[in-house]
Amino acid sequence: MQTQQSEQTTIRILGIDPGSRVTGFGVIDVIGRQHIYVASGCIKTTVGATLAERIRVIVHNLREVIATYQPTQTAIEQVFVNVNPAATLVLGQARGAAIAALTLDELPVFEYTALQVKQAVVGKGKAAKEQVQHMVVQMLSLSGTPQADAADALAVALTHALRNYSLASRIQQGLTIKSGRFR
Amino acid sequence: MQTQQSEQTTIRILGIDPGSRVTGFGVIDVIGRQHIYVASGCIKTTVGATLAERIRVIVHNLREVIATYQPTQTAIEQVFVNVNPAATLVLGQARGAAIAALTLDELPVFEYTALQVKQAVVGKGKAAKEQVQHMVVQMLSLSGTPQADAADALAVALTHALRNYSLASRIQQGLTIKSGRFR
Repeated sequence: MQTQQSEQTTIRILGIDPGSRVTGFGVIDVIGRQHIYVASGCIKTTVGATLAERIRVIVHNLREVIATYQPTQTAIEQVFVNVNPAATLVLGQARGAAIAALTLDELPVFEYTALQVKQAVVGKGKAAKEQVQHMVVQMLSLSGTPQADAADALAVALTHALRNYSLASRIQQGLTIKSGRFR
Repeated sequence: MQTQQSEQTTIRILGIDPGSRVTGFGVIDVIGRQHIYVASGCIKTTVGATLAERIRVIVHNLREVIATYQPTQTAIEQVFVNVNPAATLVLGQARGAAIAALTLDELPVFEYTALQVKQAVVGKGKAAKEQVQHMVVQMLSLSGTPQADAADALAVALTHALRNYSLASRIQQGLTIKSGRFR
């Protein structure tokens, strides 16, 4: 008989919810089957500032978050193509800048769609935004609800954890996997 | 009578033509009224690579260009909103990453539309792409035509020079300015 989880490695995940005005971030630790809240917050850019200035703020602050919390993996929400092409361009630029900040420290970057986040956190793809935030509070045993963008970032981090580590930890404990979703 | 151009400061401009597959760059020196070619080239990303990997390549290589040529100012072409929203998103992300690389070294970033580039380099906003490239070759006394994206990047750098420094140098030499375009 093998010792169950004799060595519990900690995986620290930085989740990002990109936006041109507000970029949410959330940091969690995965230890065995547990998800532990570490930090979360928002990076806000000045309305009316130039694009370069807003990108400077996003990159500078994300680098500070990375330096402070030292994540080992990152997960970022995929943005959808907006009906407004100009808004899509602005959002794309903010997201590109956020990913640039993540790649600077050679951190692996994983991408998840809003559908994947809802499926992983709530269990169904058609869940409302409030349900996702409710589950984030439950799963991380938070005493209050974080700001919406920070909660979304924590949800992306949880999605990465649930899809990659929680299942693996269950396999280690001898549970049967029915479908071949684990990779 | 004042001494004409007794102190000629060199301004080194890095021009960028952003793209998801190819990012062009061009470096020029502005010394008095002269524009001198320094370097140009293309950063190509692998087809089929993830977005994060492509952004990593753009940022890493742009930082190398900056470290090598030490520009004091940067100019980047504004991208237009494409009819294809998905393409707009991809291009926006690549452009955001390029601007992120420029802001890391606290370089000032100036943005110019394709119209402004054509007006500055060719003298008319409806100029064909080939005319812009032809003028780049003429103005920088190049022995051959650079690759299209590199030529476009040089054109953006020239636009920044022409709009901000060449006119100023002409004013110093006592030429009359008819319209109030100089700022």
